[in-house]
Amino acid sequence: MTLFKNKYIRKLLDLYRDIWAINSAEALMGWDLDTYMPKSAHRYRGIALGRLSTLSQRLMLSEEFRKQYDKARREKNLTIEEKGVLRVLGRELHYYDSLPPNFLRELARTTTNARKSWLIAKKKKRYEKFLPSLKKIIELSRRKAELLGYKDKPYDALLDLYEEGLTTKRLEPLFRDIKHNLPRIVKKILVKRVFPMNHELESKKYNKEAMEKLSKELLKRIGYPFNRGRLDVSAHPFTIDISPNDVRITTWYPEKNFRESLLATIHEFGHALYELQISKSLSMTPIGIGVSLGIHESQSRFWENIVAKSKQFIDTNLSLFKKHLSILDQYDSFELYRYFNTVKPSLIRVKADEVTYNLHILIRFEIEKEMINKDIDPRELPVMWNEKMEKYLGITPKNDAEGILQDVHWSQGSIGYFPTYTIGTLLAAQIARKMDRQIKLYKRIEEKDYSSIRNWLRERIHRYGSIYTPERLIRIAIGQSLDPEVFMEHIRRKYLFE
Amino acid sequence: MTLFKNKYIRKLLDLYRDIWAINSAEALMGWDLDTYMPKSAHRYRGIALGRLSTLSQRLMLSEEFRKQYDKARREKNLTIEEKGVLRVLGRELHYYDSLPPNFLRELARTTTNARKSWLIAKKKKRYEKFLPSLKKIIELSRRKAELLGYKDKPYDALLDLYEEGLTTKRLEPLFRDIKHNLPRIVKKILVKRVFPMNHELESKKYNKEAMEKLSKELLKRIGYPFNRGRLDVSAHPFTIDISPNDVRITTWYPEKNFRESLLATIHEFGHALYELQISKSLSMTPIGIGVSLGIHESQSRFWENIVAKSKQFIDTNLSLFKKHLSILDQYDSFELYRYFNTVKPSLIRVKADEVTYNLHILIRFEIEKEMINKDIDPRELPVMWNEKMEKYLGITPKNDAEGILQDVHWSQGSIGYFPTYTIGTLLAAQIARKMDRQIKLYKRIEEKDYSSIRNWLRERIHRYGSIYTPERLIRIAIGQSLDPEVFMEHIRRKYLFE
Repeated sequence: MTLFKNKYIRKLLDLYRDIWAINSAEALMGWDLDTYMPKSAHRYRGIALGRLSTLSQRLMLSEEFRKQYDKARREKNLTIEEKGVLRVLGRELHYYDSLPPNFLRELARTTTNARKSWLIAKKKKRYEKFLPSLKKIIELSRRKAELLGYKDKPYDALLDLYEEGLTTKRLEPLFRDIKHNLPRIVKKILVKRVFPMNHELESKKYNKEAMEKLSKELLKRIGYPFNRGRLDVSAHPFTIDISPNDVRITTWYPEKNFRESLLATIHEFGHALYELQISKSLSMTPIGIGVSLGIHESQSRFWENIVAKSKQFIDTNLSLFKKHLSILDQYDSFELYRYFNTVKPSLIRVKADEVTYNLHILIRFEIEKEMINKDIDPRELPVMWNEKMEKYLGITPKNDAEGILQDVHWSQGSIGYFPTYTIGTLLAAQIARKMDRQIKLYKRIEEKDYSSIRNWLRERIHRYGSIYTPERLIRIAIGQSLDPEVFMEHIRRKYLFE
Repeated sequence: MTLFKNKYIRKLLDLYRDIWAINSAEALMGWDLDTYMPKSAHRYRGIALGRLSTLSQRLMLSEEFRKQYDKARREKNLTIEEKGVLRVLGRELHYYDSLPPNFLRELARTTTNARKSWLIAKKKKRYEKFLPSLKKIIELSRRKAELLGYKDKPYDALLDLYEEGLTTKRLEPLFRDIKHNLPRIVKKILVKRVFPMNHELESKKYNKEAMEKLSKELLKRIGYPFNRGRLDVSAHPFTIDISPNDVRITTWYPEKNFRESLLATIHEFGHALYELQISKSLSMTPIGIGVSLGIHESQSRFWENIVAKSKQFIDTNLSLFKKHLSILDQYDSFELYRYFNTVKPSLIRVKADEVTYNLHILIRFEIEKEMINKDIDPRELPVMWNEKMEKYLGITPKNDAEGILQDVHWSQGSIGYFPTYTIGTLLAAQIARKMDRQIKLYKRIEEKDYSSIRNWLRERIHRYGSIYTPERLIRIAIGQSLDPEVFMEHIRRKYLFE
């Protein structure tokens, strides 16, 4: 803690360490829940997690903690790290100061029920089953926005929860560009047919054990430190930060279409690398973690979309793939490249490719804005959804399960979350361009020199943890703000050879 | 919580649930540390565990908790469960009320250093390297005994920490019997030679994967519920209670001598079964866990020594063993029985057989008594140790590493712990006799009817958790108190056919 010299900050960080310890325990319990926990242990694990979460909240809202925070706030001449600590804690305190316990309880009750009715609605493919819950969630989200406060639009208060400082105003030009340019680009790609819509490898079965070996070998190659992490299997891939030396990832091995497994593993590697490369001097403090969902997603997408789907990556790792997967015997590097980069307008966001993905988010962004900023009737949402799908992607869902009901987010009360995915995709392209200019990214990939890439990311982004706001960090990293044109350029160059 | 009707008790249990949640987290973190945790995560895990342990202590010592406890104590007409809660919490509170924080810190510092010097001393085979630490630990243990208070002997205060209500006076007749009778029995067994000192299977290598399969199949057969637990590998076998539906065991697969692995697994099964069969109505309360180390050890030893080493068990599981272990092709059931039951006076406690084991504890009991109750010079301990080894077991250690330095306990400040092993062994034999009289234990084993055995243990012992003191629970279970003669009888009948 030598970075932190102010006595109140030091006291605050000492108090915070209990909260960090609880967070660390919760992270491990969450990991275990999805990997090794015996089946019947669910109920008790839920109770224990609930208690710990309330306990850590109580510690943060304790008089003692608040006293030190207030004292530290009045200090002059704090370092940037010390200011970062106060900024991050201030956000957390503001949340609990603004939202009364009764409101939070109502929200928790509502999302618990909404989760159930969403599952039923999705299974029965009937939006009406989810409608009452969604109505309530929209209503509570609007109240939440009012309670939290905002300068311009109510939606901004919700966006800020997932991406500090994000506003409708900042997002609008980004999505305007996507809306106006991306559908045309998609059409051109489909006409050009260099990258297919489907590939026969999508239906080829692979050997799971071989795939696991390949994944581990590849992770080692790109620099995942197995002495500070693990690769396990779970129902959905995720990354979990248990401590600065314990950031685990999981993946899945569906029956076929090995790209799905491999790219998920590399995606999670990107998340993990971020946490693993944060400066150790920030460890166990509120700023010793990744700063936002958008920045985090830029890291996972950078490794997934920019690195792993590049021609250079596939060229130089082909022999490793072939060593483990006998289904690849007949394929050359270019064919694999085409397989990794199919482009196809599809109904389901999580299955979408790099090109069409942002159109899925565009739809959600436009709907969420209306939900919160305007007085729309929620009954109209499925029609709105389907019209936008047709307009931007040229396809219409056959039912609500593959339409408006596909994502879990709204049922969890997470309105304002989706745009962080787009921030991640756009930023990944900007990082790639900057890195390419500075250290010739694609040559680095070609030479399997992943350590130069990791070092660049560490020095420019990772090491700062949450010292700066996401907006500030983007400026520091690439010297500019978010710009969708760089992403479009990446897509045009890669898929249209422009 | 329908068992608990008193309003103060209910409030107390609600407060306690936070402590339970922390305990559950610590248990999982401990399990992970020894099984799947990445290597470099040690330091941070240590910090997190330290914080959580202090936090749970703080919760228990909080004014709020104490207030409810004091109110509940003044209540009349409490149920036995409610009284049990107060008894167990009272013990914990008495510990912290008696030992000042400064003293506990000094103890923690001392044992941290002692652990290091013990490792060095053991490695260098030189007791002098450990002597200064041990001196300090003895001194602190005496102070601890004075601070905690006792009726008769200072050693009693320490014994009570591991086995509630245990005293020198209660132990003395037990060890007197062991001291006078056991060495003679051992000699007779050695002369008789039905059970060998060594067996060629001890040096036979087995296939680890096959051994793992065998262990899991055997655990299923004897009734370990894999939906409420797991079997993993660790450096030393252990059982960990994470929640009422999550009691995990670990084992080891050393290169050869498969009995070591198999019996360890079954030993841990005995511990796990105890926790798994505690009444669910006691879940998440201070009395929802096994009551003492001695009772716990009786459960593990019962399954290891009484069940798994019996002729009937080996007869009826021989085909399962043979299915997995090709090294057994040439052996019949009786030969395996001899292998499982070798008897050999040896230097190392943890490698000792069922017969000689209590002689190892006898030595430690006699030395600990002198350490605490008398003013012995710790420099004399190695000579004392070696003389007793020679006297009771007929062998003398070549050096201190295989003599007085072999166990970790004293370096951890755990003086008074060893006798619980003997309580476990003696009680296991008494449980076996009682069960045999009531439900024909050996016939049950012969018929692979393990569920009758599990049910007996649940109804008579397990379900009570910590409602009663260990002494009371023994009375309830077998209608008598600890009696070494039953153990001697078991040994004489089994090994001398008397």
